[in-house]
Amino acid sequence: MSAVTAEIITIGDEILYGQIVDTNSAWMGTELTKIGVKVKQITSISDSADHIIKALDEATLRADVVLITGGLGPTKDDLTKHVLASYFNTSLKLHEPSLADIASLFRLRGIELTELNRQQAFLPENCTPIRNVLGTAPGMWFERNGKVYVSMPGVPFEMKRMMTDTVLPQLKEYFDTPHIIHKVVQTVGLPESILAEQLETWENNLPEHLKLAYLPHLNGVRLRLTGQGTDEAKLQQELQQEVDKLQYIIPNHIFAYGEVPLEEAIGLMLKERGLTIATAESCTGGFLAHKLTSIAGSSAWFIGGVIAYHNEVKIQELAVNAETLQEHGAVSEATVRAMAENVRLKFDTDIGVATSGIAGPDGGTPEKPVGTIWIAFSDKYKTEAKLLNYNKSRLLNIEYTTMAVLNLVRQSLDTTVEE
Amino acid sequence: MSAVTAEIITIGDEILYGQIVDTNSAWMGTELTKIGVKVKQITSISDSADHIIKALDEATLRADVVLITGGLGPTKDDLTKHVLASYFNTSLKLHEPSLADIASLFRLRGIELTELNRQQAFLPENCTPIRNVLGTAPGMWFERNGKVYVSMPGVPFEMKRMMTDTVLPQLKEYFDTPHIIHKVVQTVGLPESILAEQLETWENNLPEHLKLAYLPHLNGVRLRLTGQGTDEAKLQQELQQEVDKLQYIIPNHIFAYGEVPLEEAIGLMLKERGLTIATAESCTGGFLAHKLTSIAGSSAWFIGGVIAYHNEVKIQELAVNAETLQEHGAVSEATVRAMAENVRLKFDTDIGVATSGIAGPDGGTPEKPVGTIWIAFSDKYKTEAKLLNYNKSRLLNIEYTTMAVLNLVRQSLDTTVEE
Repeated sequence: MSAVTAEIITIGDEILYGQIVDTNSAWMGTELTKIGVKVKQITSISDSADHIIKALDEATLRADVVLITGGLGPTKDDLTKHVLASYFNTSLKLHEPSLADIASLFRLRGIELTELNRQQAFLPENCTPIRNVLGTAPGMWFERNGKVYVSMPGVPFEMKRMMTDTVLPQLKEYFDTPHIIHKVVQTVGLPESILAEQLETWENNLPEHLKLAYLPHLNGVRLRLTGQGTDEAKLQQELQQEVDKLQYIIPNHIFAYGEVPLEEAIGLMLKERGLTIATAESCTGGFLAHKLTSIAGSSAWFIGGVIAYHNEVKIQELAVNAETLQEHGAVSEATVRAMAENVRLKFDTDIGVATSGIAGPDGGTPEKPVGTIWIAFSDKYKTEAKLLNYNKSRLLNIEYTTMAVLNLVRQSLDTTVEE
Repeated sequence: MSAVTAEIITIGDEILYGQIVDTNSAWMGTELTKIGVKVKQITSISDSADHIIKALDEATLRADVVLITGGLGPTKDDLTKHVLASYFNTSLKLHEPSLADIASLFRLRGIELTELNRQQAFLPENCTPIRNVLGTAPGMWFERNGKVYVSMPGVPFEMKRMMTDTVLPQLKEYFDTPHIIHKVVQTVGLPESILAEQLETWENNLPEHLKLAYLPHLNGVRLRLTGQGTDEAKLQQELQQEVDKLQYIIPNHIFAYGEVPLEEAIGLMLKERGLTIATAESCTGGFLAHKLTSIAGSSAWFIGGVIAYHNEVKIQELAVNAETLQEHGAVSEATVRAMAENVRLKFDTDIGVATSGIAGPDGGTPEKPVGTIWIAFSDKYKTEAKLLNYNKSRLLNIEYTTMAVLNLVRQSLDTTVEE
């Protein structure tokens, strides 16, 4: 049986003019691959009826599934719905449930439902509407000659929610795709090249139907082991056996099994152990606390934090000695240690973490160039500080530093998380 | 005269499978637009000879310029060069200058020149080679029937250097291109549909050669006005005239002219007026401070912040009355007002802002469902609080709340920024 094939069509000038980067297609490509659907082509076109129809015709020749995003907005330059109606020889009809959704969304926002938005509830008669719980434009599912055509909004979070809740499960069912199982092992602390060297022998001995992918990431390298077969149970077992071997090859570099972000892995672990944490941030400016509080239920273990951007705040709020700042400067081991220790005492938590560095682009000196960053971890047993040297953009320095702190917490508490 | 049209073809499975996001095309789209070349389609395909030829045929029907990236690596799954040779009925021939470049690159890296890399200097006889000063794969420029075909490596920095140094200037010269100018006006506080209604008359009266696009965004709707013509000065003037009209139609909803993010617009304004700001965050958990400190030079106006996740912290650090919390709860106008006022006093800043709400997915109640969020702004003249109601994912509730706070600051200080 040959793999089910897909084509992704994105509609809208903003992608063609480079006003926005098309991240939707990459996400869709990843998710389709996971369910064994092979993406043959990604096509970005303008909001023009002729062009949309041409693209649909060409995609029909190539693919079993055509996923269309964009052009569903309420304004007159959004043509997709009307083009699809004529492409599938049908007309638009009011879809009451969609109108109800749109109306309730506007009630919630406390604004008047406009005629333009009311129009969004008119859908091609022969499509199966797909509910949009996060926006006003419903999705549309069409079937013709055994092929499936799905139209979704271009707004990333609306599209993703529709794909996850409706489109992906329905595609699996409609095409009865073969079993494709992925196991993800997340590693930190080893660059891809060195990791590849250590895993070479293991990788070369993998059975034919198991494939390994290295997916480098902000916080390390994700290893994705993919197996394809008809016997799901057997496949699961084979994958697990190979994953188990990894624990002996790179024991100290695996932080999670499955798609668990580092911050979530840490949250799970803190919750398990009943530990609490507080943050004292200078150069990361709140991003560290944000990463931790982005996890649902984080209020169980995240107590609070201080963003000590100015030295005055470091002194007043985190009891850093003025002398320490005078002598060693804000970006120093002494300062960051004091910040981590004192934020822990201030908020009476089990753990305190701190960051102080030069994120750039300004503020660097010959002794402390941009990217010089100190981080620290403190609990009742010990306080550890670490010097980082990045030479990236301001935002990347902030993100890398945050991940380094999370990894320092992980290492200090030495843990691995199962999804 | 109709605009010169282009198609971008990217070759390689890693984009189709979502392993990498195609940022090259967006960059190329922006640069091509700047020189008046209109991108008609972006096509991502796999490294297969048939597919590449099919894509070239289709692109030839649509575009005057076909820009191809990827598939120029030294390994055997890189087919582009061979496919192009046969597509243009020619054979590969050693190009000495390219070999010299490759050899010197290897000398520089101190590694032996491999046969595989030597092969990269063999190029189609009838192409004009494009020098690659940053990598081993030369680019190729073909001309046929007045159309131009350019092949470049997929490595972003190699492609960008080739485009900037060679391809863009040569395209401008080859096709005597018209001027295309974009003006972006960023709005907040009005959903796309309502904005469209208010702008309808103005939009309908735009001259033929000026085109309006609505680009919805996390923090509002970006309006992109695009003009095309031969007289650049005249075009600039026409666009400015139309943009000026907008100030009278939606005076309170324009926060910036040009591609300035809201947080940067606020940073510029605070700096201009010599004002400082501090943040007191509950539900946004540090993201608000992060947005502000993501701006280079923010230490000039951002002093510090408190992340008061637990009520204890709200009481201890932000002097919120225990009675207030008892009576009204943490998610209340009284609490958020106190947080904004007290963080301003605590850090002795001109402005204090605060957030307190239920980001979800847990923690909702019938009276205060998930997405119930209070925000506040405080300066020495006034304290304003606002109730928000979102029903999005945790992360989106956090992001939307942050943008709402930034917009509250903008409105309270009533400002608009010029790029």
